[in-house]
Amino acid sequence: MDDTIKQALIDIVDQSNYTDALIDLVSYSYDASAHKYRPEAAVWPTSSDQVSRILAMANRYRFPVIPRGAGTGLAGAAVPEHGGLVLDMCRMNKILDIRIADRLAVVQPGVIYADLQKALEPYGFFFPPDPASGNVCTLGGNVATNAGGIKGAKYGVTKDYVLGLEVVLPDGRIMPTGSKCMKSASGYDLTRLLIGSEGTLAVITEIVLKISPKPLAVKTSLAYFASLKEAGQAVTAIMNSGIIPSVLELLDENTIRVLREHADMNFPDITAILLVETDGYTETEASYQMEKVIKAFKKHNATQIRMAGTADEAEELWKARKSAGSVAASLGTNNLSEDVTVPISKIADLLTRISDIVRRYNLPFVVFGHAGDGNFHPKIMYNSYDPDQVERVHHAVDEIFKLTCELGGTLTGEHGIGLAKAPFMSLEHDPVTIDVMRNIKRLLDPKNILNPGKMAL
Amino acid sequence: MDDTIKQALIDIVDQSNYTDALIDLVSYSYDASAHKYRPEAAVWPTSSDQVSRILAMANRYRFPVIPRGAGTGLAGAAVPEHGGLVLDMCRMNKILDIRIADRLAVVQPGVIYADLQKALEPYGFFFPPDPASGNVCTLGGNVATNAGGIKGAKYGVTKDYVLGLEVVLPDGRIMPTGSKCMKSASGYDLTRLLIGSEGTLAVITEIVLKISPKPLAVKTSLAYFASLKEAGQAVTAIMNSGIIPSVLELLDENTIRVLREHADMNFPDITAILLVETDGYTETEASYQMEKVIKAFKKHNATQIRMAGTADEAEELWKARKSAGSVAASLGTNNLSEDVTVPISKIADLLTRISDIVRRYNLPFVVFGHAGDGNFHPKIMYNSYDPDQVERVHHAVDEIFKLTCELGGTLTGEHGIGLAKAPFMSLEHDPVTIDVMRNIKRLLDPKNILNPGKMAL
Repeated sequence: MDDTIKQALIDIVDQSNYTDALIDLVSYSYDASAHKYRPEAAVWPTSSDQVSRILAMANRYRFPVIPRGAGTGLAGAAVPEHGGLVLDMCRMNKILDIRIADRLAVVQPGVIYADLQKALEPYGFFFPPDPASGNVCTLGGNVATNAGGIKGAKYGVTKDYVLGLEVVLPDGRIMPTGSKCMKSASGYDLTRLLIGSEGTLAVITEIVLKISPKPLAVKTSLAYFASLKEAGQAVTAIMNSGIIPSVLELLDENTIRVLREHADMNFPDITAILLVETDGYTETEASYQMEKVIKAFKKHNATQIRMAGTADEAEELWKARKSAGSVAASLGTNNLSEDVTVPISKIADLLTRISDIVRRYNLPFVVFGHAGDGNFHPKIMYNSYDPDQVERVHHAVDEIFKLTCELGGTLTGEHGIGLAKAPFMSLEHDPVTIDVMRNIKRLLDPKNILNPGKMAL
Repeated sequence: MDDTIKQALIDIVDQSNYTDALIDLVSYSYDASAHKYRPEAAVWPTSSDQVSRILAMANRYRFPVIPRGAGTGLAGAAVPEHGGLVLDMCRMNKILDIRIADRLAVVQPGVIYADLQKALEPYGFFFPPDPASGNVCTLGGNVATNAGGIKGAKYGVTKDYVLGLEVVLPDGRIMPTGSKCMKSASGYDLTRLLIGSEGTLAVITEIVLKISPKPLAVKTSLAYFASLKEAGQAVTAIMNSGIIPSVLELLDENTIRVLREHADMNFPDITAILLVETDGYTETEASYQMEKVIKAFKKHNATQIRMAGTADEAEELWKARKSAGSVAASLGTNNLSEDVTVPISKIADLLTRISDIVRRYNLPFVVFGHAGDGNFHPKIMYNSYDPDQVERVHHAVDEIFKLTCELGGTLTGEHGIGLAKAPFMSLEHDPVTIDVMRNIKRLLDPKNILNPGKMAL
């Protein structure tokens, strides 16, 4: 990227929204994954028009453009593998409109997830997807990666709440998609094609989100199981029982051991924990569902069942789940958090076999995640300066992906493909499917300027 | 289509699954719209492999292929405008799998909507979208048109319940999309790109549907309003009240007049009716929501409010809504049912101005529809053999589409574009958006063999 281009970028965004200072380039060289590549410059665009001019220029001079939100992604999707220009969207951070009766909010991509929730709070409404990084991640990033969260079983993921977009195409053209209506069957669903495309097809400059009234009543319970098999059976029984829990989390025996040994949590001799929430507008509704859950716990020999009577007690029940990730992470210099997902009936199978795999490579690990939608996070601790450990992690992850696909699963439930899972796309997807994805990438971005190298496309 | 091709088709599907008998070709020349074009032959494929061989052949010899379900579409999407071969998918009608704990059903495209519901009934589960033609329409057609229904406000539409597909591309390649998992962020969302593409991009040969537990409690109420404005305000108040009704239907004064005059329904002097259902697992939950609804009715001066205490009483309240379409239709030799959708806050405006428009053209009409998601069906009666009436209908519909788009709406909430709305695509969509849709069509179907002429693409 030569000085003429750099000056042209400054002319577009203003000096105050441009950087090629080393400290910034280092910051933009990574996200929350292990991948690191340094860009040549970064800008903070403040309008769709600026994004349009930048992309038109990138298309003309063929430099890579990597759109980026808060960089909380775990798959390397925002890492500038081929250098180029980082487009940090965080200064396009206005909530443009909230229309409760129309059930929608219009936001710029740089709005922090939690800021939208705060703005909706006074109306008793919320944006249901709830990524763990909600306090810092941006809605643009949520849309670009189709972010999920802990309440996916009942509330779905980001894609279920996007009505329309404004995006800038790689050639600089601005394209609106979808509408501000609750329903539309008009033309191809370009909105959905763009959601989860990880900045490889277009840059998101505006988002129309569907919002929902908040449930008012929540019940929380926790159950211990002596065997993973029984916990898996309880999950199946809950899903068969005619209700949908809003939270259905599972912690495996490795997680329990780590919490016992490193966070002084006083667990009996158990191999699985299920944490469940049910909700509704009324206590009766939440309780009705929780009774079905408790019945499933009992039927499958839960060794202990705890119910929260107050919000503080609920907080206490959440403690193990909420600290699992950070306590486990403290066991290694680095950690790799995967995101495999299987049909719900395969959960016990998946978890048992993941344990078998990682144990063989002799690395500390835990597995926990969203049993209610089959999405699990095996987290493996290692030292990235020890080539032998790095190799063992890679082998273990290889095997985990193979196992997942063998069980009819998907490589990623909510983190995306990025760089991390790009080499494994053909494990999950048919060659024809990948070919069509590639052709769509080529169609919209023939010069491959937008986030090149991602998703194996 | 010459005899060699016809013989080759017979070789692929067997004589018993082939027809070019006039009576069949006439049957396949229309759907539930006013459009009529005759195909040259029709086949009933019984496997993906057959569909693949047929499309490969069509691609080689360049004849149009029009996939078709039950032909209940209201937009002409299944009408063979350019002749060619109708692919009637109704003999691929197996429910391949129902996995309750995994929350999914795998079906062939020819499965009748109601047959799936019947199969799910014993488990207490259902497939939430509910098109009015549910007793006859096929799930393949539902997916191809992104069919909606009366419970969209709470339960969404078909696209919200499709996890994956198997399709045959125009070149004959078989392509699986999506997965059998509840969640996936793996690659481009080709599933969603294909949903609602009206058979222009691929032929659907298998569908993985997400299913849900059935609500057990339902409350039904009906309210009369002296002014449309107040009914509109009540709708807004309900949507603001922090609940989502499962049904929120509005009947306008024209509908009320028609029902009074032609179905002996005894209405007082009112200009709007709202019909509302709320649901949940428990009576308490359904009642809590209904109380909010009743409060909104009262606040906005409902002149009469009726609540159903029993299923029979609920049926009674539904009577006006359920007979509106057929009673109105009986007033003309033909009728045209549109499908415009606006943001919920624009409903009163839309309905008032639709009335102004159609009255100017002096044709009998009614407007009713799904206020809960802003989707309305203006139904205009006319005689298709009277060129003057036909012209007036066309002018009225033109103006209705212009109005809808001016109000930030969409041409179609649930019927699709087909032939009927193809000329109006540019009213709603930006030229860039249409260009990208066209390019995707060209990319996947370069020889334009699949359902050519539809959606203006």
